[in-house]
Amino acid sequence: MGGDFAPAAPVAGALLALSELDPDHRVQLVGRESVLREHLTAHLGGEYAALAAHAARLDLIDADDVIAMDDKPAAALRGKPNSSMHVGLRLQVAGQSDAFVSAGNTGAQMAVSTIILRLHEGVQRPAIATIFPTAHQPIVVLDSGANVDCSAAELVQFARLGTAYAESVLGRQNARVGLLNIGEEAEKGNAVAKETHALLSSSGLNFIGNVEGRDLPRGQSDRGPFDVVVCDGFTGNVVLKFYEAVAPMMIALLKQQGVDEKVIGAAFRHLDYSAYGGAPLLGVKGISIIAHGKSSARALKNAVKVAAQAAASRLDAHIGERLGEPARS
Amino acid sequence: MGGDFAPAAPVAGALLALSELDPDHRVQLVGRESVLREHLTAHLGGEYAALAAHAARLDLIDADDVIAMDDKPAAALRGKPNSSMHVGLRLQVAGQSDAFVSAGNTGAQMAVSTIILRLHEGVQRPAIATIFPTAHQPIVVLDSGANVDCSAAELVQFARLGTAYAESVLGRQNARVGLLNIGEEAEKGNAVAKETHALLSSSGLNFIGNVEGRDLPRGQSDRGPFDVVVCDGFTGNVVLKFYEAVAPMMIALLKQQGVDEKVIGAAFRHLDYSAYGGAPLLGVKGISIIAHGKSSARALKNAVKVAAQAAASRLDAHIGERLGEPARS
Repeated sequence: MGGDFAPAAPVAGALLALSELDPDHRVQLVGRESVLREHLTAHLGGEYAALAAHAARLDLIDADDVIAMDDKPAAALRGKPNSSMHVGLRLQVAGQSDAFVSAGNTGAQMAVSTIILRLHEGVQRPAIATIFPTAHQPIVVLDSGANVDCSAAELVQFARLGTAYAESVLGRQNARVGLLNIGEEAEKGNAVAKETHALLSSSGLNFIGNVEGRDLPRGQSDRGPFDVVVCDGFTGNVVLKFYEAVAPMMIALLKQQGVDEKVIGAAFRHLDYSAYGGAPLLGVKGISIIAHGKSSARALKNAVKVAAQAAASRLDAHIGERLGEPARS
Repeated sequence: MGGDFAPAAPVAGALLALSELDPDHRVQLVGRESVLREHLTAHLGGEYAALAAHAARLDLIDADDVIAMDDKPAAALRGKPNSSMHVGLRLQVAGQSDAFVSAGNTGAQMAVSTIILRLHEGVQRPAIATIFPTAHQPIVVLDSGANVDCSAAELVQFARLGTAYAESVLGRQNARVGLLNIGEEAEKGNAVAKETHALLSSSGLNFIGNVEGRDLPRGQSDRGPFDVVVCDGFTGNVVLKFYEAVAPMMIALLKQQGVDEKVIGAAFRHLDYSAYGGAPLLGVKGISIIAHGKSSARALKNAVKVAAQAAASRLDAHIGERLGEPARS
């Protein structure tokens, strides 16, 4: 029920995902059942008629309450106990689903996920891990908005969570971690960045040092490529939103010069955010994928595929192992 | 003597600037005189022969010490008292020049400028104000790297400095100020951002509220366009370096698809950083323009023109007025 194009986009996204996933996967659509059924019927009688066979692997799960995009997270958490978020996440705790995806209110999804799934031992707060397209290969940037004031210890925990994610979902081996900072040298940056650099150096993680803003678009620093970049959620959110906006601005300028849309699309195909669909909330015991509020059906299809991949790769168990790993002396 | 292409690029940049500025302007080249003369002779005997007439308005000022790009600022400040930075800035205090430009060690330029020019009353630390090309019109972003940990009071001071700069040098009327944050609402952001929002609201400045990362490339938020964006130097530096790198990355992808270089150049002509040349260090009593270490002759020409414009518009006096302005009750 969440997101700017709900429930049309999530219902269509679920159908599209089922058409691409192995046939043993099912998708549960959680929300006001009559509304969901109405949209499903409309899709199958129209644009998505060719996908009708896949509807047999869709389950409609009724949930009365709807969390609005501008509801306060704490109020939604307590005041709407039968929201689609609550009901969907409870299915996971009950062992009736393997992962949860939403394009709804991000703050509410964090709050409800934290309370219902609970946090891994030792995790203070969950982090949002965003896949960042680069010229080299996609990287994981976290935190990208869940935690605006972070301690060095929290940033190190983000590095562990991001490492597990890069290894499980992106298939990276011994994922390389960079610390977002304003210079290469260990002594650069604000107080938290300096302390984090020291902690990461003895964390047992594959820490390659500081990376700068200029290194993000190419996915590598002068020390080589990296898979994970850690930063506080304030900086991460600003850079992420900037990145999301700068490409459309440049595309508009190219179109004004008459450059063919197909050529532009081909050039920037690796930079397409909707290909990655969703950002996992890491640190919770389970899988909760946060999709952009503006997610299209295609973006939600990809978010569901990210969720399936996270479940199949045992991301959650991998995170548990990473958090229990002793520090290198 | 500073910058990756010194002294060839600064010497050429000075010649180019003189060829475009009114004939009553002179440029002083400060550094090891024999080295400067050598480069000047080579330029006038080669690529820049057509500009020979302008060399009469060049003064060579000898300065023995050279601050290296990797010198520690404090060590350079005390240990190299006859550096080109020290000598050049002292000329300004002595009334023998109106502005200073360097592509050298940024930290050293900040330290030497602060000590020699001194700070305006009430200013705790100077800020670097960068011109940021947007789809709408150029904006001023500060601080872009001088201060990594900032208090709310310092951010408000940056807003005053940036306002004076946008009005004096960019010719904006009653410059509109935005606060870089992770959401539109006043209660969004980290602790410093929330406090800054409250202080800016009663500052007497033309504060339009929070702006997000996505608003930067288009130069406007949902509340309309803005001229100045304030942020701490950590976030500012990360976003600035990211912006500098993302355009070349996208241009490389377009070239791979065979898009004509001239078409790309025409599309992105307003996004060219070197057109702005230099970022002023604001808060010092005088004019100190920080050029990128990788500045070309063209970028340094534009930095000299920024310096001339700052001097002609009485930027320094304007800043004094802005800092003395009483808060609106």
